Amino acid sequence: MGDQKPILYSYYRSSCSWRVRTALNLKGIKYETRPVNLLKEEQDIPEYENLNPLKMVPTLIIDGQILTQSVAILEYLEETRPEPALLPKNPIDKAKVRAIVQSIVSDIQPVQNLRVLKHSGQGSNWGNHWITLGFRAIEKQFKETAGVYCFGDSITLADLCLVPQVYNANRFEVDLTEFPIIRRIEAQLNELQAFRDAHPSNQIDCPTDS
Amino acid sequence: MGDQKPILYSYYRSSCSWRVRTALNLKGIKYETRPVNLLKEEQDIPEYENLNPLKMVPTLIIDGQILTQSVAILEYLEETRPEPALLPKNPIDKAKVRAIVQSIVSDIQPVQNLRVLKHSGQGSNWGNHWITLGFRAIEKQFKETAGVYCFGDSITLADLCLVPQVYNANRFEVDLTEFPIIRRIEAQLNELQAFRDAHPSNQIDCPTDS
Repeated sequence: MGDQKPILYSYYRSSCSWRVRTALNLKGIKYETRPVNLLKEEQDIPEYENLNPLKMVPTLIIDGQILTQSVAILEYLEETRPEPALLPKNPIDKAKVRAIVQSIVSDIQPVQNLRVLKHSGQGSNWGNHWITLGFRAIEKQFKETAGVYCFGDSITLADLCLVPQVYNANRFEVDLTEFPIIRRIEAQLNELQAFRDAHPSNQIDCPTDS
Repeated sequence: MGDQKPILYSYYRSSCSWRVRTALNLKGIKYETRPVNLLKEEQDIPEYENLNPLKMVPTLIIDGQILTQSVAILEYLEETRPEPALLPKNPIDKAKVRAIVQSIVSDIQPVQNLRVLKHSGQGSNWGNHWITLGFRAIEKQFKETAGVYCFGDSITLADLCLVPQVYNANRFEVDLTEFPIIRRIEAQLNELQAFRDAHPSNQIDCPTDS
């Protein structure tokens, strides 16, 4: 296990790839990036589909296995590389972190993502609408859970999901003034090296003119 | 812990409530159902919002705590009531089950659900489109993972998520002929008492004329 350097199939601006990049960085796992250009629909190429029948990013090759779905990958990394911990120990606390994670990865991101937005025919209003609604929900969750970060004062999986979602909020020109906790947490996270290194602008497939 | 009977705030036809009902049944946890009528927007009533700021179902009150988000609840039940196990022991196998779970709970259900469907203005074509696409992905996952059930021959969290999704597929008149594995697994699951008891038609808030 773990003899070969893990390979991450990633797209620089994909929220789901970004979550996994941050986890790998926080846990100090060196990996190789293989870009999959979603704009060129490289996820549909048969060689990639053989790896990931979902035709989505990310795919992580690690421990001789092919893993898909960002949350499943995050949980796997947490279980096999438990330090530093990205979930609290107590089952109730863990459930609260996972509830924030699901609020982002189920209720916000999949609804505002590119393929759904395109199909809606409603342009960026569509993304703005769903992120605003979703942020109202998580801002309320944070009133109960937040310390320095989304859940208390340690970084958890919830933080890894929040940062890309705020980036998308900015792309869709969501008015963030009504979300002071979200803004504060995101600003703090973006100061950290592991988060900076995972940012789209620091990926090898980020266009130089963007 | 566990002295008071758990209370599940549930809507009979909600996929997310249904997943949790099935887990409670499989693990032999007796609970009280409190219906929240989504058609009457009872999830927006302040008393309910105080319990669940997300204004969604389900909410589970258990061990003196208020839990939200179905997947976070399923993981909590698995951790605190591990028998019968609904996740494999091996981390890789667990990641594969969680990948199926996420394919349903992130990539299909939230996109086809009522609030998003309404906002799309595209009626039931919207639901049909996203379930068909999503089922193509999970049918491919099942070619690798399925035995009697979604992952091998034991019931896992993936099965709990599949059954409500097939029910919705039927509501949106998705042509299931191209998904033989999904159809076979769902038919088998619906034979089991825990699944039958969790079915919408057996809920106290199911209208008698439906």
